[in-house]
Amino acid sequence: MNKKKGQQSIVYEVSPVIVGTAAIGGPMEGEGLLAEYFHYIMKDNLHGEDSWEKCESFMLEWVARKAAQNLPGGMELADCVLAGDLLNQLMATHFAMRALGRPFIGLYGACSTMAESMILGACLIDGGFFQHVLGCASSHHDAAERQYRFPTELGVQRPPSTQWTVTGAGAAAIAASGVGPLITAATFGKVVDMGVKDPNNMGPAMAPAAVDTLYQHLQDLDRQPNYYDMIYTGDLGSIGKTLVIELMKEKGVDISANYEDCGCLIYREDQDAHAGASGCASSAVTFCGYIYSMLLQKKLSKILLIGTGSLHSTTSYQQKESIPCIAHAVAVEM
Amino acid sequence: MNKKKGQQSIVYEVSPVIVGTAAIGGPMEGEGLLAEYFHYIMKDNLHGEDSWEKCESFMLEWVARKAAQNLPGGMELADCVLAGDLLNQLMATHFAMRALGRPFIGLYGACSTMAESMILGACLIDGGFFQHVLGCASSHHDAAERQYRFPTELGVQRPPSTQWTVTGAGAAAIAASGVGPLITAATFGKVVDMGVKDPNNMGPAMAPAAVDTLYQHLQDLDRQPNYYDMIYTGDLGSIGKTLVIELMKEKGVDISANYEDCGCLIYREDQDAHAGASGCASSAVTFCGYIYSMLLQKKLSKILLIGTGSLHSTTSYQQKESIPCIAHAVAVEM
Repeated sequence: MNKKKGQQSIVYEVSPVIVGTAAIGGPMEGEGLLAEYFHYIMKDNLHGEDSWEKCESFMLEWVARKAAQNLPGGMELADCVLAGDLLNQLMATHFAMRALGRPFIGLYGACSTMAESMILGACLIDGGFFQHVLGCASSHHDAAERQYRFPTELGVQRPPSTQWTVTGAGAAAIAASGVGPLITAATFGKVVDMGVKDPNNMGPAMAPAAVDTLYQHLQDLDRQPNYYDMIYTGDLGSIGKTLVIELMKEKGVDISANYEDCGCLIYREDQDAHAGASGCASSAVTFCGYIYSMLLQKKLSKILLIGTGSLHSTTSYQQKESIPCIAHAVAVEM
Repeated sequence: MNKKKGQQSIVYEVSPVIVGTAAIGGPMEGEGLLAEYFHYIMKDNLHGEDSWEKCESFMLEWVARKAAQNLPGGMELADCVLAGDLLNQLMATHFAMRALGRPFIGLYGACSTMAESMILGACLIDGGFFQHVLGCASSHHDAAERQYRFPTELGVQRPPSTQWTVTGAGAAAIAASGVGPLITAATFGKVVDMGVKDPNNMGPAMAPAAVDTLYQHLQDLDRQPNYYDMIYTGDLGSIGKTLVIELMKEKGVDISANYEDCGCLIYREDQDAHAGASGCASSAVTFCGYIYSMLLQKKLSKILLIGTGSLHSTTSYQQKESIPCIAHAVAVEM
C-alpha cells in the first residue's frame, strides 16, 4: 500500500480476487441491451412478493446467495457481507441480511454503493481481516419512485432529463485468493455539490463528483486514461456522461475514447428510459453482469468503475437544499 | 490479526489509537447526568438553523472538526471520514460532509453507527490504507421523532416503554500512532430479528442482537466478561438492559457486575425520558464524552462498546414487518 499523504487513492498489496458475481434484473432490464448478462430475470416487478420493497429484498438475497456459490464454503463461510440500497434505512438490504445470517456491514452511498462495497470489502481482505466477503447493492424502480418522486400508479409524466431507476441487484464475491479479476486500486470520493437542485436531472448533479474522483485517481496513481481499456461511471445517463467528457477536457484530460456510463448501457432507445438508467443497480448489474463477463473473456483487461451517488433525501429536497453527490472509483484488472 | 474461520471477531495488529474525541449535546442532554462530559451543549434544538435536520448537520460537522484538531495536520490531513445518522439517506451526514470536503465513507448501522465507524476506521488504519480517520455519528430527537413516529409539535403521548432519541453527535479521531486508548479488537454482528414489531419498544427488539454479538465476542477471543472493566451496550434502555443480563445468564455468562447501557447513563429519572436514551448519539456521546474521559483518567482501562442498531424503517413497520436488529462490538483499551 503506497498511499501518500493528501492523496485519496489506495493501491492494494494483495489485490483481492473477484471470484464470482451475480446479477438479477426485472422485466424491463430483461428486454434491454444487457439481457444476456443477467443470471436471472424476473417476469414482473413483484416476483410473488407482496410489495416492491420485499421484491427488492428478494433480489438482493438472490444475488448474494448466487455469488457466494463461488466462495469456498459458500455463504456459510462468508466472513461478512457489505451491502446497501436506496430505500429509507436500507429496508431491502436489512431484510435480505436477516435471511442470510452472516456478519453484516451496512453502507449508504446511494448509487455509488456497489463500488463502495467492493472497495471496503477489498480493504478488509487486503488488510488481513477476512478471507471471503460479499459486496452487494440493489434498487427497485417502483420502490424508488414511490419514495423519491411519485408512486408509479399515479402515472406522473417524467421530464426528458429523468433517468430510469434500474430494478435489479448485483453481488460480487471477493476472496483473498482464487481465479478472477483483481481489485488493484481505489479512490474514495469527496462530497461534491455544485448547487443543482432538480432531482429529475441527476446526471449533471453527479457529473462533477465523478470528474473530481476520476481526476484525483489519475493524479494520485500517475496514470493516463488509456491505462484503462474502459472507464465506467455508474449512472450519470446521457446528459451527465456528456458533461463528464467536457469537464475532463477542461482539466486537459481526454477520456472520450474509452469512457462509457453504465446508465447508457442498460436500456434500448425505444424503451423510453429518457436520459438513461440510474439507481444502485445501474452500476451493480452492469459490473456484475456485463463488465465482469468481458473481463473473464479477456475482451477487457483493465477497467475503472466509478460508482456515482446522489446523496439528497426527500426531506432535503423539500427544504430547498441542493444535491450533494459522491463518486468512489475502483480499479479491476484481469 | 488472528481471526479464525467461522469467527466474527478480529484482533488488530497495530491497534489504532483514539487520539481524541468530541461530543455535543442539546439542552436536555445538557441537563442530564453526563453534562460535564460534553465539549459543547446547544442552548436549544435548532441552534440558529432553520430545521432540526440542519441542526443535526451542524452538530456532526462540529464534532468532526473538534475531534480532527487532535490529528496531526487537522482536518486537512484526515484521510477519510466514516459517518452516518438515522435520517433518510443520511441527510445530516451528507450536508456535514459537503462542508468538510474530505474523502467520505457513508455508513448505515442505525444506532450502531458509532461503533461501526470506529471498527471500520480502525480496519482502514490497521490495514495500512490510512494514517488518520474520523468516525462519527449523530441523531436529533425532533428530526428522528418526525421521521419515525410523530412530529413533536403534535404532543403525542409516549408509552412508558419508549426511549428518548438523543440530540447530539460524537466523533472519534483515530490514528496509526499517537497517545490515547487503543482499538484492540472488534466483532461484526449479524442481523437478528426475534419478531418484535413495536417501534415504541426497541430495547427488547435489540437485546438479542447485543447478546448474540457479545457472546460471540467472548467465545471468539476466549475471554470472560471480567476481562473488561466495563461492557457497554449502545441504547437498549432500562428494559433492554435487564433483558441482556437475563439472556446472557441463560447462556451461562454473568455480566451483571460490569455491564451498563449507554441509554441508562444520559438522562436523570426526573427528565421523563421513560425507558432511557436511544439514537446514534446515545453511544456516540457516551463514548466520545464520558467513557473516553474515564479511559484517559485511568478510571477505566479496558472496555467493550457494543453499538446496537434497530434496522426497521417506517415503510417496513407499515408493512407489518418485525424489527431486524444488529450489534457491533469494539474493544478499547488504555
